[in-house]
Amino acid sequence: MTFDPTTLRYNDAGLIPAIAQDAASGEVLMMAWMNAESVARTLESGQVTYWSRSRRSFWVKGETSGNRQTLVDFRIDCDRDCLLVVVNQIGPACHTGRRNCFYTAVRDGDEQEFAAPEVNA
Amino acid sequence: MTFDPTTLRYNDAGLIPAIAQDAASGEVLMMAWMNAESVARTLESGQVTYWSRSRRSFWVKGETSGNRQTLVDFRIDCDRDCLLVVVNQIGPACHTGRRNCFYTAVRDGDEQEFAAPEVNA
Repeated sequence: MTFDPTTLRYNDAGLIPAIAQDAASGEVLMMAWMNAESVARTLESGQVTYWSRSRRSFWVKGETSGNRQTLVDFRIDCDRDCLLVVVNQIGPACHTGRRNCFYTAVRDGDEQEFAAPEVNA
Repeated sequence: MTFDPTTLRYNDAGLIPAIAQDAASGEVLMMAWMNAESVARTLESGQVTYWSRSRRSFWVKGETSGNRQTLVDFRIDCDRDCLLVVVNQIGPACHTGRRNCFYTAVRDGDEQEFAAPEVNA
């Protein structure tokens, strides 16, 4: 069946959450948002393209930093309201310079950071 | 630092997305939503507890089906607006009986299912 981005279920702002997972390590890298046009651009270009809610513009991941995400597999969940993009990640995915955004854990009631920014991030 | 669930960034409906990842396989199982109280209940009980938007009630994953998610690690992203719960998943995570919810892929412009429901799901 030919895929049509408009058949996904977007929220009231026209957005759908997209989870990025590293194809090699299986690590969950980040979560950001897409609209129908960024879904189409991601599939056409093979470069993961989110919608920046703060800048209100398309956001080709790594276009400025070089830390690109190249699409390996594009997946849709059972409710069609969440995406999983499996990617080859160049450099850190997180804007803080860490490999992934989930570097804070809650353990025994305390918040703790367990990953430092990468060198040369 | 003692963790306070109210310091997370919730959307206008008071919800935050929570990605569930299998602790053993690294597989991304599902994404659902939590409010501050379900965050607190998850941490207290060790049983992943979402907020069901459709039923407008707490949703202890697997309470009815037996397909529970036991919390292994609770992580917060850099913007504090997304959670990653690393879990031990009993049985299938998806309500369709599949191990995870992301069983549909878009490949070469076509939508295709690549996982079947598990036996006895």
